Amino acid sequence: MTAPADPADAPAPLPDLAMDSLVLSTRARAQLELLEAHAPAAARCLSACGRAISYPRGIPAQAAEASGTRINATIGQVTDGRGGAMPMPLVEDLLGGISAEDTVLYAAQGGQKLLREAWQLWQTRGGRLAGMDLSQPVVTGGLTHALSVMAEMFVEPGTRVLLPNPGWGNYDLIFGTRRGVQAERYELLTEEGRLHVAGISRTLAASAVPTVMVVNFPSNPLGYLPSPEEAEALAAALKEAAGPLVVICDDAYLGMRWEADTLRGSFFGLLGGADPARLLPVKVDGATKELFLFGARVGFLTFAAGPEAAAVLEDKARAVLRGNTSSVSAPGQAMVLAALREPGLKAQRDAIRKVLVRRYRALKEALADAGLSHWPFNSGFFALLEAPDPEAVRQELLAQGLGVVAIEGVGGVRIGYGSLDEADIPELVEALRRAIP
Amino acid sequence: MTAPADPADAPAPLPDLAMDSLVLSTRARAQLELLEAHAPAAARCLSACGRAISYPRGIPAQAAEASGTRINATIGQVTDGRGGAMPMPLVEDLLGGISAEDTVLYAAQGGQKLLREAWQLWQTRGGRLAGMDLSQPVVTGGLTHALSVMAEMFVEPGTRVLLPNPGWGNYDLIFGTRRGVQAERYELLTEEGRLHVAGISRTLAASAVPTVMVVNFPSNPLGYLPSPEEAEALAAALKEAAGPLVVICDDAYLGMRWEADTLRGSFFGLLGGADPARLLPVKVDGATKELFLFGARVGFLTFAAGPEAAAVLEDKARAVLRGNTSSVSAPGQAMVLAALREPGLKAQRDAIRKVLVRRYRALKEALADAGLSHWPFNSGFFALLEAPDPEAVRQELLAQGLGVVAIEGVGGVRIGYGSLDEADIPELVEALRRAIP
Repeated sequence: MTAPADPADAPAPLPDLAMDSLVLSTRARAQLELLEAHAPAAARCLSACGRAISYPRGIPAQAAEASGTRINATIGQVTDGRGGAMPMPLVEDLLGGISAEDTVLYAAQGGQKLLREAWQLWQTRGGRLAGMDLSQPVVTGGLTHALSVMAEMFVEPGTRVLLPNPGWGNYDLIFGTRRGVQAERYELLTEEGRLHVAGISRTLAASAVPTVMVVNFPSNPLGYLPSPEEAEALAAALKEAAGPLVVICDDAYLGMRWEADTLRGSFFGLLGGADPARLLPVKVDGATKELFLFGARVGFLTFAAGPEAAAVLEDKARAVLRGNTSSVSAPGQAMVLAALREPGLKAQRDAIRKVLVRRYRALKEALADAGLSHWPFNSGFFALLEAPDPEAVRQELLAQGLGVVAIEGVGGVRIGYGSLDEADIPELVEALRRAIP
Repeated sequence: MTAPADPADAPAPLPDLAMDSLVLSTRARAQLELLEAHAPAAARCLSACGRAISYPRGIPAQAAEASGTRINATIGQVTDGRGGAMPMPLVEDLLGGISAEDTVLYAAQGGQKLLREAWQLWQTRGGRLAGMDLSQPVVTGGLTHALSVMAEMFVEPGTRVLLPNPGWGNYDLIFGTRRGVQAERYELLTEEGRLHVAGISRTLAASAVPTVMVVNFPSNPLGYLPSPEEAEALAAALKEAAGPLVVICDDAYLGMRWEADTLRGSFFGLLGGADPARLLPVKVDGATKELFLFGARVGFLTFAAGPEAAAVLEDKARAVLRGNTSSVSAPGQAMVLAALREPGLKAQRDAIRKVLVRRYRALKEALADAGLSHWPFNSGFFALLEAPDPEAVRQELLAQGLGVVAIEGVGGVRIGYGSLDEADIPELVEALRRAIP
C-alpha cells in the first residue's frame, strides 16, 4: 500500500443514497457496506445502477441450486428429461469436437465454471499476476461487452471518464454516448513518443470526482507498449492518485509483444498492492485476440480486490450481464475451454505469433524505407501513420483496392498488419507513400 | 391507421434537446428529424442515448467499405492475407459443419447479412406479417440482449415502463435497474383468467409520458396465449392509445402453441397499420426457443416502420450493439443460418414440438387429477401453480431432488416442462400436491 500523497486527502464521500432514483434492496445495501469497508474506491465509483444491482434470486439462481436434481423443471429450455440436450439432427451434423450440450443448452450465468477456472490458470500461468488478490473471471461476450458491463456499473452523468488519445474510437460509445457522459481523452505519449506519465498524473490530480480510466497496452490503434520503466512509473502515478479511481486495463492485445525492451505481461499486474481506498484495478481480457478466436466472442472481467470485495463486484458484474445479455454464447465458451486444455496450444499460438512478427518486421522496414512518419509501434496488430487528411488517403487507397482505416481525430491512417500477407506489404506501403503528402 | 381517440390529443412534444447531457452530432440531428417526420412516437420515446447515438464512421464501417479489397489492412484480426481465416489446428479439429471463417473471424456488425435475410424469410414464411413495413432484423446475442438494446434506446429516468404481471422477472433488471427506472407491472389477466384488455387500456390512458410496454405471448412464466379475439381487442386498444408508445413484442416462445382456440402467429402482426405518431411496434425474437438452439444465443430485433424510419432505427440499434457488445458470436450465427437453410428443418422442429405437446398434455392431465390450482396455460414451456409460499414449496421439492422455480411476487411455482421426461411428470405433480397446502 502507498501512503496518501497528502494526509489531508479525504476520500470522496459516498453519494447521498436518498437521492438515488432506485431504491436499494437489503442485499444491495449490505453489498455497499461490504464494499465501503473493503474497497472504498469501488464503492464510491459505482453508478446508481451499480449500487442498486445485485444478482437476483430469480430463475437462473434457482436453476443453479437445482442442478443435479433427479427431475429438473427449472429452466425454460428443452432437454431429454435427464439434463441432456435434445438437438435437432441437423444441429448434430454441424458439430465437430463440441458436444450438443455445449451448443444447444444454456451456459451458466457468469460463464461456464470450468472455463472460468481455466482462464484464471491461463492469466496466472508462469507466475503472472503473482501476489495479487483476484476475483474469478466473469465470462462476457467479447471484450467490448466486458467494457460495457464496467460502464454500466461505474459510469453515469457526473463520472469523469478518461480515455487514451490516440485510442480506440469505440470507447466513446461504450463509456460516453451510451452512459450520457462526455468522455475526456488523455494524451498517451509525449512529443518524443514516450509514455506521458507527467501529463497523466496532472490530469488525475485535477479533481476528486469518481473517475474511470482506461489503459490499453498494447494499444489500439498505435500498437504501442511502453518500456518496463515507463509502465512502472505510470503504475506508481495511478497508485498515488487520490481517487476514487477505477482503472480498466484493456488487455485485448496482451502477449502480442514483438520487442525486447517493452513491458512483459499485463500492466494490470503492476497495480497490485494499490490502496483500495483510492484505486480499483480491473482487467478486461479475452480469447478474441489472445487465442486468435475473433468470431467466438469470449471475453473476461477480473477485479483486483480482496475476497469480500471481489465477491460483491463479481456478483454485481454477473447481475449487469444477466440484465444486458443473460448467458454468453455456449459454443464459443466450449471452443475456448477446448483450446485452453489442448497441450499443443502454446506451440500453435506461437506459430501464429511468428507470422505476425514477420509481418510486423516487414512493415517496419518498408515504412522506414519509404520515409513515412508514424507513431511508435512495437506490439499488437497495428501501426498508425501520420496523415494530414486520413480520409483522403483512405479513399485514394480504396480506389486501388487497398483497405486501411482513417482515424480522423488524430490525423492518422491505421494499418492492421494482422490481415496482411507479408508479400503484399511493400505494395501497400508504396501506395501509402504516394497518397500521403 | 386508427383515428385518434380524441381529436384534442396532441402528441407529446420532443424533449428540449438543449437539456440533453450529450451534444447531438449533425448525423444524429438529421436522424431525429427523419424520425420526427416518419415515426414521431419513436422520436419522442428515444432516450438521451437513443437520440445521440448513431452508427459511427469508425473501424467497422470503414472495414465494411473495404470488404473485397485486394489488400485489406482494416480490421484488427489475423487472416491469411486473402481474407481467409488462419485458425490454429486445434480449432479446426473442433469444427464440424461450420467453416473456420464462421468461427475464427468476426461476424459483420449488426449480424451476418445472409442470416438477416434468412431470418426475415423465416419471420414472413407462409404470409406471416403480410402488409407490414419491416426493418431488416438486427442480430443480437440472444433475446435478453435484444431487449436490453431497446432499453438503452428507449428507457431512461422519466420513461414509463409497463411490464406484464405475471411476467418474467428479468425484465426488471433489463428495463428497470439498469436504466435507473422503477418499472410498473400491468395485470395481464382478469380474475376469470381472460386477457385484461380493459385494465391495460385504463393503464395506458393514465398518462401521456413516453411509454415502453412489453407484451409477451406465449408468456413466461404462464405459458399463456390469448384467444384470437382477445388478442385483436388488445391490439386495437394499443393502437388507440394516445402514446407516444413503444410496444416490444417479446416473441421468445413464438410457435409453441398447443391449443386450437389461441392466437396463431405473432401478436406483433396485429399491430400493422398502427399510427406512427402514436405507436412504434418492435419485434424481439430468436433462434433460442424457436429453433431450440438455447446456448447459441442468437436473437433478432425488428421494427415495424416505413423505410425512412426503419433505416434510422436499425442504424441506432446497430450503434447501441456496437457500444455494448460489438459483433455477435459468429459460430452461433453460422449454426442458425445452417438450420434455416436445412430443408429438413420443419420436420425436425415439429418432432421436438410433438415431444413438448406430449409433455404439456401429461402435465395438464396430472394437474387436473391432483386438483392443483394454476394460472391458465396453453402454450410455451411453462405452467404456473398457485402457492401461498412458493419458496417453501421449492425448498421442500429440492430436498426430494426435484427442481421447480418459486415466483415470489405472484405466489406461484413455475414448472418448466420442456426439461421434463413425460414419465417423470406424475411423480413431480404428486410431490407438488403434497407440498402445496
